[in-house]
Amino acid sequence: MIFKEGKGERQLIIHIVAGGPPDLIPDLHALEAENVVWVGVDRGVTYLLEHNIQPFKAFGDFDSITAEELHDIKAQLPEAEVHPSEKDETDTEIAVNWALEQDPEIIRIFGGTGGRLDHFLGNIQLLLKGLDRGALIEIHDVQNKLYALREGTYTIAKDCFLPFVSFMPITPDVKGITLKGFKYPLEKKHIRFGDTLCISNELEVESGTFSFDEGILMVIRSRDYHPLS
Amino acid sequence: MIFKEGKGERQLIIHIVAGGPPDLIPDLHALEAENVVWVGVDRGVTYLLEHNIQPFKAFGDFDSITAEELHDIKAQLPEAEVHPSEKDETDTEIAVNWALEQDPEIIRIFGGTGGRLDHFLGNIQLLLKGLDRGALIEIHDVQNKLYALREGTYTIAKDCFLPFVSFMPITPDVKGITLKGFKYPLEKKHIRFGDTLCISNELEVESGTFSFDEGILMVIRSRDYHPLS
Repeated sequence: MIFKEGKGERQLIIHIVAGGPPDLIPDLHALEAENVVWVGVDRGVTYLLEHNIQPFKAFGDFDSITAEELHDIKAQLPEAEVHPSEKDETDTEIAVNWALEQDPEIIRIFGGTGGRLDHFLGNIQLLLKGLDRGALIEIHDVQNKLYALREGTYTIAKDCFLPFVSFMPITPDVKGITLKGFKYPLEKKHIRFGDTLCISNELEVESGTFSFDEGILMVIRSRDYHPLS
Repeated sequence: MIFKEGKGERQLIIHIVAGGPPDLIPDLHALEAENVVWVGVDRGVTYLLEHNIQPFKAFGDFDSITAEELHDIKAQLPEAEVHPSEKDETDTEIAVNWALEQDPEIIRIFGGTGGRLDHFLGNIQLLLKGLDRGALIEIHDVQNKLYALREGTYTIAKDCFLPFVSFMPITPDVKGITLKGFKYPLEKKHIRFGDTLCISNELEVESGTFSFDEGILMVIRSRDYHPLS
């Protein structure tokens, strides 16, 4: 445990910054807090250092940065873990595995979208790892927030910055999905992997609910435009 | 059928340009050919017209473009199909459904990545529709090319512009995957949805093969950087 205070008082939040396109990373300074620990992955380490945020850990094969940048990283972060590029796990996966061992309340991944889509889709698959371990993993960029949930009933508050709410089956079936307080409500609907029925919904009230009885559902909250466009 | 020549002589290719971030769309002029038919979706219609490519069809609720732009579109494309935004299908799905009815050899989707990730993930789910109908659907952007395949044996040629080859299960299980001619070969491996084992492989020979016995696999060919970065 890197965070000493007991659960319930103040929970550990781990922010992983991966090496995706920097223009899709939101303002990280706005997300700093005492209980937030920063982790850099590959080019994400350089990104953090450039933004004067000290990573607690750094992971990667660092094959996407220059030898000079790697030298600087090693000078500033003697504990950086440099992994060989020939490995069975992606760099972000290694960071998520480490993060899960710290027993955090939430892991947020930044710099994990855009660019190489195999990396992004690999990151989506990591959301499942969090479910297995009881930690919520979220993927964030300037236009989107994604996470995966098992069956249950959830409340969801309106977010004017991310007005669209989409639900997508990760398992072949998601049974009994019910949406309340949404523009397009649903009642005990069975949706299958490949269905696009639950894309682009919106909350009509300040706080709605959604529930489902079986399966794993990905929730995507999004906005139409890059905030700087 | 919009394309009169018989199959085997010259097959119809349909290029759908959706409304994703324009900086991720490759040079479309390089992809023009006599057997290529262009289809615009929402802001993708404006993109095509701006690039002097005449869409054969246009679909969308056009809620992401201005009234003036929509007026121009209707003037240039009297047959544009304006759909209400309150519908069960995404705009790109409506375009893909139309495209599948034309019995094409390949459907390529551009402007379907980046921006809103619910749209991108919805587009991935559309790849499955092509499989059901015997048409190959590909998603293209400047750094990536994605498609889905059923069990079989496939040859794959090296592409120096997209050196990374990743395989990702779309079904819960993909059984008996064998990779030959790759940097990380595999022999009759069983992979599951959520496994990141087959991410970031590379061909070691000019032409390799991959095969699998059961399931649906997504193939992602990618490069590390935007070609203009």
